[in-house]
Amino acid sequence: MNVIERYWAVIEARDWPGLAGLLTTDVVYELPQTRERIRGRERYLRFNAEYPGDWHLTVERTHVDTGGGASWTAFTVGDETVPALTFFRLDGAALIARITDFWPEPYDPPPGREHLVERY
Amino acid sequence: MNVIERYWAVIEARDWPGLAGLLTTDVVYELPQTRERIRGRERYLRFNAEYPGDWHLTVERTHVDTGGGASWTAFTVGDETVPALTFFRLDGAALIARITDFWPEPYDPPPGREHLVERY
Repeated sequence: MNVIERYWAVIEARDWPGLAGLLTTDVVYELPQTRERIRGRERYLRFNAEYPGDWHLTVERTHVDTGGGASWTAFTVGDETVPALTFFRLDGAALIARITDFWPEPYDPPPGREHLVERY
Repeated sequence: MNVIERYWAVIEARDWPGLAGLLTTDVVYELPQTRERIRGRERYLRFNAEYPGDWHLTVERTHVDTGGGASWTAFTVGDETVPALTFFRLDGAALIARITDFWPEPYDPPPGREHLVERY
């Protein structure tokens, strides 16, 4: 397992001490869509522990190289499944120092490209 | 430059022969938010060449490992800049075989976490 796979495994397991062990003490978590930022491991652990709903996740893709990585996960709550895209920066000890989450929503396709696309 | 950096450089340059040289002939492009799919290099080149607007892009992050990678780019049209998250699968010759694009939109933060977050 790479560090991003471990990150998602401990979150799915609600293993908060395990999550703490993957993060720098001054980790920064950002949500560019809402322009929310959480500073520090303690607050970020609490954000995860307090997150409402009986959510479960599966990992679709992870890619890790020097300095960071990205993942595509699928979050399910009840009958609904939504994708999450996450970018990570790692420090020199391969601890997660920065996390940026995106939660894209469905939208209607714009007109003008029907001659090229199929729907699935 | 890794293959994803080359991909974005030729797209920004509108270098369609250069883009063709990075793709498998049967490349598949998908937009999960609209459930649109484009099959094949010729159609995908046309989709890019026909894409409306005087858009420009900058690359925020790329991460590439064996078999694929991911990028976070920022697309600007006029005064508006929006993020795009893209996942890639590579074939054995490091050509791009599959592209999945996400275009997340701003949304209002849900209540209940104001004690943990700051806005930026």
